[in-house]
Amino acid sequence: MSRPQTQEQAVDSEGDSSLYRRDEEGTQSSHRMLGFSDALLSIIATVMILPVTHTEISPEQQFDKSIQKLLATRIAVYLMTFLIVTVAWAAHTRLFQVVGKIDDTLALLNLACMMTITLLPYTFSLMVTFPDVPLGIFLFCMCVIAIGSVQALIVGYAFHFPHLLSPQIQHSTYRAQFRRHILRLVLRGPALCFVAAVFSLFFFPLSYVLMVTVIFLPHISKATTWCKDKLMGHRESPAHNLEPFSIDLHAPLSKERVEAFSDGVYAIVATLLILDICEDNVPDPKDVQEKFSGSLVTALGAYGPQFLAYFGSFATVGLLWFAHHSLFLHVRKATQTMGLLNILSLAFVGGLPLAYQQTSAFAQQPRDELERVRVSCAIIFFASIFQFAIWTAALLHQTETLQPAVRFGGQEHAFMFAKLALYPCASLLAFAATCLLSRFSTAIFHLMQIAVPFAFLLLRLVVRLALAGLQVLWDLRPQHPQPGQGDPEAQSQLLPAPC
Amino acid sequence: MSRPQTQEQAVDSEGDSSLYRRDEEGTQSSHRMLGFSDALLSIIATVMILPVTHTEISPEQQFDKSIQKLLATRIAVYLMTFLIVTVAWAAHTRLFQVVGKIDDTLALLNLACMMTITLLPYTFSLMVTFPDVPLGIFLFCMCVIAIGSVQALIVGYAFHFPHLLSPQIQHSTYRAQFRRHILRLVLRGPALCFVAAVFSLFFFPLSYVLMVTVIFLPHISKATTWCKDKLMGHRESPAHNLEPFSIDLHAPLSKERVEAFSDGVYAIVATLLILDICEDNVPDPKDVQEKFSGSLVTALGAYGPQFLAYFGSFATVGLLWFAHHSLFLHVRKATQTMGLLNILSLAFVGGLPLAYQQTSAFAQQPRDELERVRVSCAIIFFASIFQFAIWTAALLHQTETLQPAVRFGGQEHAFMFAKLALYPCASLLAFAATCLLSRFSTAIFHLMQIAVPFAFLLLRLVVRLALAGLQVLWDLRPQHPQPGQGDPEAQSQLLPAPC
Repeated sequence: MSRPQTQEQAVDSEGDSSLYRRDEEGTQSSHRMLGFSDALLSIIATVMILPVTHTEISPEQQFDKSIQKLLATRIAVYLMTFLIVTVAWAAHTRLFQVVGKIDDTLALLNLACMMTITLLPYTFSLMVTFPDVPLGIFLFCMCVIAIGSVQALIVGYAFHFPHLLSPQIQHSTYRAQFRRHILRLVLRGPALCFVAAVFSLFFFPLSYVLMVTVIFLPHISKATTWCKDKLMGHRESPAHNLEPFSIDLHAPLSKERVEAFSDGVYAIVATLLILDICEDNVPDPKDVQEKFSGSLVTALGAYGPQFLAYFGSFATVGLLWFAHHSLFLHVRKATQTMGLLNILSLAFVGGLPLAYQQTSAFAQQPRDELERVRVSCAIIFFASIFQFAIWTAALLHQTETLQPAVRFGGQEHAFMFAKLALYPCASLLAFAATCLLSRFSTAIFHLMQIAVPFAFLLLRLVVRLALAGLQVLWDLRPQHPQPGQGDPEAQSQLLPAPC
Repeated sequence: MSRPQTQEQAVDSEGDSSLYRRDEEGTQSSHRMLGFSDALLSIIATVMILPVTHTEISPEQQFDKSIQKLLATRIAVYLMTFLIVTVAWAAHTRLFQVVGKIDDTLALLNLACMMTITLLPYTFSLMVTFPDVPLGIFLFCMCVIAIGSVQALIVGYAFHFPHLLSPQIQHSTYRAQFRRHILRLVLRGPALCFVAAVFSLFFFPLSYVLMVTVIFLPHISKATTWCKDKLMGHRESPAHNLEPFSIDLHAPLSKERVEAFSDGVYAIVATLLILDICEDNVPDPKDVQEKFSGSLVTALGAYGPQFLAYFGSFATVGLLWFAHHSLFLHVRKATQTMGLLNILSLAFVGGLPLAYQQTSAFAQQPRDELERVRVSCAIIFFASIFQFAIWTAALLHQTETLQPAVRFGGQEHAFMFAKLALYPCASLLAFAATCLLSRFSTAIFHLMQIAVPFAFLLLRLVVRLALAGLQVLWDLRPQHPQPGQGDPEAQSQLLPAPC
């Protein structure tokens, strides 16, 4: 759903004072604030991968139980943070589909909301470090209640000054009902958390159950609605009965905000890597003098594998962004399923710094390199296969979700298929190759990382050649025209190109 | 200058297939790619503050020469990185004012350009750690040459397929001249760097001089043009003679991209802080058992000052963003001077994690707290005073740069003044107070950080009251109507409100 102010913004940005107007004192377009919130949330979601990659495994120390436990703990914190932040982001998106414009007070309330969200990773760290102490879950519940209260304040404020609402609701006769409906949605999670906070004082395992419920609430409520529909026969939801525009959980996500959030994740993942390079890979002047007899070039040569791993990782992140960008250029609406698949893909993209750390550790511990290469291949595979799944999900409802060019039979269909299938195929191939040629696993992995960018550059050419080849094969076949057979040109377009 | 595709994008995002069109195969709007580049560049510019804040000063160790040198080194790397990345960002902005649309090849070339830019911080680290070895400067020059080559490729490609150019150039009869002019601009820096790279092999001090020239090239060339104009009398620049649209260095910056870059810096600064909290302030289970007899709440109590500092810093970053956001809502065009002041402001905003680290270190080393509070106040003061300077610079050319509401006499003028003057005044006041009451410096600083957000919430009210007070004072004066005297209402609006 495109936000209604887009058109007006474009007019505003022309900078023509005759077109410049503000309906009420201090009312502003919410565009930039939403972009800033997306950037903040995507960074908070991803930044918890850093403690995972900073887990030091010194060469003397065995990869023993305590290290394994620490690593598992940190990965759990990362995944939980990613999940809860994406849930908060989705709620934020819904909220600002209702609130179309902002003023200073709403901007400040939004900042307060963001600040509370940044505390969630800390409560997870506490929970995971002290699983037997209920303080972590208690603080988590307090944060969720605080976020809910601020969001309820935002809703109350916006309905008190209706010119801030999106035009559909502003001119609706059912505004009071909408307000109740939205407040119920916003306060549902905090209410559960209040119960969880009370239980955390005397029987905290139940609190954890309630917390999981809060996180999966949107999906649970979607599943129950779906089951109810199946059991009792399909019927219109009550909100639909009121009028065509409804704030239910099945509405498509705002495509712009999905893009902005994804961009934030890709950008932070790509640049976290340079930080590690700058902090760890500048040799110590004393070492250079003693070990490398003063030759800086030789000293840097020792870091060769790290640099190679950095280039490979940056290229991987960049090209995954490129595939995402190409896909969303052709997406018209993002459904809930596509949003969920996108978040799963991003969670693995956030794991790429871990893949970098794994591959750059070759130099220190060559004996584990097979496992490290496989972990990296798996992360890349899952990040890219979920991207592919977004496209598959979009194709299921292609008339609603996709632009004509990439639908079945569209001129860009085969090309888009090849673009999205490149990384899953390459990482799977690399994984398989390490099984057969385990001695050359590092070489295979680096070869893959270097070859894929060139494959992307030549992709259009390769796809054309493949399609032409298929066409020639088709023409060479003995002609037996069948009734109802389609145009051979369209047929060959339908066939996926080999990747 | 608003990018010409904005209008078309707005139409595209409606998702109506009848409005969906692509002029040539694979041509795309560059909007999302530019946003992604802005996010990447802003993160690279800011992330080098982390090594500064991670400089550990243990309580036993004195704040001695070696630590001072290390800290100075790291601050130098941060500032140099920030400077060079903003120069690269400005060049990127100019380039994509010429190239209006992109295709897959340009998107991939842009990614290659971004990857090379991420290596610049590393070359600075090398330069600063090994000032006597010319390898750092040599690598820096190689990077700049690589960036220049990729940008030249982008220009060449775009002029080869003119439908990718911005409409003004596309339909211009002087396209070949434009191409030469832009290529000269793009390759000027790399050419100087090539000379610097050659000199680095036998006389590297000259290389450093050339490097500084490259960084300040845009400003130097602006200054020389200005001096020439003054000495020889004002004359039109040759590009202006060709036709009204010119790609010279005096053209205003794209407002959208200034906003996107600034948002990236604010977002990363706000969230870097939570990372430190999560990594350092989760107590060790063993410590809790031994030192605090198993009470987690007591253990967390010891981190109280850090949490207070975190809230204060997040609020400061958030409110500085808020002031920036309010200002740019009313900006129509960003001039070169405003862009430079914005970058200076952002460089100090990037220093805020240092302020956080300084204030959160109170708990460990109470003896240095006076210096730490003063450093923090100074960073906040400079970050906010440069924001104020942006507004002052905009007011000098207010008809071109500002919306009517905030010009002299506009209805929002006094309010905007108060918003932008709040942080400079508060930090200056806190600094002065620490001089008088040095024993209470921590309390004063925390009081300031907590009071300012409330001041922002009540600002509109306070400004109204102040204006009403001024009005009353004006009315109480004996009436001596003078010829040519303006409307008293407008006069009182002109007066700055007390902050």
